[in-house]
Amino acid sequence: MDVLSDRLRAMEESATLAMSRLSRELKAQGKDIISLSLGEPDFNTPDFIKEAAKQAIDENYSKYTPVSGYLDLRESICRKLKRDNNLDYEPSQIVTSTGAKQSIANVVMSLVNNGDEVIIPAPYWVSYVEIVKVAEGKPVVIQAGIESDFKITPEQLGVAITDNTKLMIFSSPCNPTGSVYSYEELKALAKVIEDTGIYVISDEIYEHINFSGGHTSLATFESIKDQVITVNGVSKAWAMTGWRLGYIAASKEIAAACEKIQGQFTSATCSITQRATIAAMDADPSVLNDMVAAFKSRRDLVLSKLNEIEGMKTNVPEGAFYLFPDISAFFGKSYNGRTIQTANDLAMYILEEGLVALVTGEAFGDPNCIRISYAAAEHELIEAMKRVKIALEKLN
Amino acid sequence: MDVLSDRLRAMEESATLAMSRLSRELKAQGKDIISLSLGEPDFNTPDFIKEAAKQAIDENYSKYTPVSGYLDLRESICRKLKRDNNLDYEPSQIVTSTGAKQSIANVVMSLVNNGDEVIIPAPYWVSYVEIVKVAEGKPVVIQAGIESDFKITPEQLGVAITDNTKLMIFSSPCNPTGSVYSYEELKALAKVIEDTGIYVISDEIYEHINFSGGHTSLATFESIKDQVITVNGVSKAWAMTGWRLGYIAASKEIAAACEKIQGQFTSATCSITQRATIAAMDADPSVLNDMVAAFKSRRDLVLSKLNEIEGMKTNVPEGAFYLFPDISAFFGKSYNGRTIQTANDLAMYILEEGLVALVTGEAFGDPNCIRISYAAAEHELIEAMKRVKIALEKLN
Repeated sequence: MDVLSDRLRAMEESATLAMSRLSRELKAQGKDIISLSLGEPDFNTPDFIKEAAKQAIDENYSKYTPVSGYLDLRESICRKLKRDNNLDYEPSQIVTSTGAKQSIANVVMSLVNNGDEVIIPAPYWVSYVEIVKVAEGKPVVIQAGIESDFKITPEQLGVAITDNTKLMIFSSPCNPTGSVYSYEELKALAKVIEDTGIYVISDEIYEHINFSGGHTSLATFESIKDQVITVNGVSKAWAMTGWRLGYIAASKEIAAACEKIQGQFTSATCSITQRATIAAMDADPSVLNDMVAAFKSRRDLVLSKLNEIEGMKTNVPEGAFYLFPDISAFFGKSYNGRTIQTANDLAMYILEEGLVALVTGEAFGDPNCIRISYAAAEHELIEAMKRVKIALEKLN
Repeated sequence: MDVLSDRLRAMEESATLAMSRLSRELKAQGKDIISLSLGEPDFNTPDFIKEAAKQAIDENYSKYTPVSGYLDLRESICRKLKRDNNLDYEPSQIVTSTGAKQSIANVVMSLVNNGDEVIIPAPYWVSYVEIVKVAEGKPVVIQAGIESDFKITPEQLGVAITDNTKLMIFSSPCNPTGSVYSYEELKALAKVIEDTGIYVISDEIYEHINFSGGHTSLATFESIKDQVITVNGVSKAWAMTGWRLGYIAASKEIAAACEKIQGQFTSATCSITQRATIAAMDADPSVLNDMVAAFKSRRDLVLSKLNEIEGMKTNVPEGAFYLFPDISAFFGKSYNGRTIQTANDLAMYILEEGLVALVTGEAFGDPNCIRISYAAAEHELIEAMKRVKIALEKLN
């Protein structure tokens, strides 16, 4: 008998986590690595949130909480969904978790049977496919390339939906591409979804990091609201990645299912994190304007530097903090006896030759691209892009 | 197509959580419920741990951590395992998680294939069976009744192990019974396990709440150390249930597998909780003596009150903070037209007639018993036992 289960052996290590582990190891060896591999704001958690957490510690919020989270936390999430997204939910429709990743896993485990088809537009976030595989679902990938700004069309979605489709996992703003679907584009997708009975996870964790002038929640479209499971959390907007809080807003039936599965796997997320999150939910999101402006100016900076590199194909993403350039022009080129055949090869080459950690697009379902996170200080971004340029210009 | 997956529909809601939800609802209706249903110390987290957490907040430990936890946290766990358990582990063998529950789920998902047999001595903790079912394993339950202090014998274990056995899930001190296996008893079990190649999860979350004069880790027995996955955490000993931190110590292969699956499902547990846990790990466990003494005196108190009730069959558990009396003598008795047929019925009768929340033994694999948590203030325990006695004496 093998030690490890089939599901474990079939599972890929998260590529972003693997790259971050690798660059941590190289740093520990004394190498001066600049890491643009992780999806994490380089800001600190705002002080008012930290104060709320410290107050919760003083007030001994250290006991088991309800699995789906404190009632007043779920009420604060309902207020946020109304204020920011004009969505009406009750606390019984909200389940908080140890990060948006767990929220997605809860939904997939609650809905997907062996063999059920799950539509995933590519490029996609690394964990979507792995979670579907653990649930024994069948990922059905719809490809969208850089020419269409990495967005799928309603026609593509229509063709992909079959009688066996149970779920679609969708994100806007998108990780890894930064693409933001417009209101009209979402409306057209909703039209395709509305009579099919499929469910849609709408991962909106990058909601507030949006340069297009406003976020549209997929659940806005009333005809599909009960089919949509909105996933969000505090990690990205509030620079709270380490605290671990995600949530869903869904039909009561799906919320109850997620609560049940989470009750057997982890119970609730940290009680102190829950109290801190109430402060974040009740804050006016306009306090994020400075951070969003900083991200936009970094996007422009990195984009202009990338565009100086011959062979680099870029688009202009409207959200998140990623660029996802097509680097296939470098395939077949060599330096020092080392030939680049894949995006994997290029990411490893840039890491070892340029000392910059990026993530291969293969992990995100696009083997022609690499993901660059620009959630780093401006001087680091400038230095990193210089190194990338030098490394790539050596290839011929 | 059904909305919910087969695995979700086959899954029971955690009975302890369900009872706590029910008693919360009755309280909200104004009923004066005494809750002895949850497995949670009624103490607050010690101040030195709270201070460590607040310092971590001030120092901005708010970024993503390694999936298995900060290196210095894992080092502190290795020191604890050496100091308290005389076990040698390296940080690469430690994976921290969002509670011992997730640690167990990680291991089960990493090891168990469809149809693999998993041995579970009953009475068992509620989530063991449910987690095995999600992994599509086959629970093989070994029954141990109150006559044997709810402990299985080596002979029983030997008979239960087959070529299809992959794993055993074991706890001492045991939840729900409070039973503690002696060194000699564990050694005899280890002897049965050693040449079988099966793996054993040794859930030692109640390690420090032990009145028998010392805890023995199952991994102490060198011949089976690589087969044992020790599970522990800070919830019970350090009154940190809400904070959510569990961990495993295991072979590097199993630790790496757990890290991989956790990386796709939740990532690490809360960064602030991790820093607080370092303080707990490095504290001398003798600071827990007062708490342990308080639990022991409460055990004696509740036991003496239970023994005043005719028909109540008790043993003297040596650990945790539970009593697990056999209440089958009440089956078939009635009050006010309501007949008690099962432990479920009795728990509901005591809740509604006596306003005391306990948990039915059925959820723990023993339909003759109920679980009473004595992690409550002495005056509450006295009042609760008075109510239970009055309610039970009405039955005839």
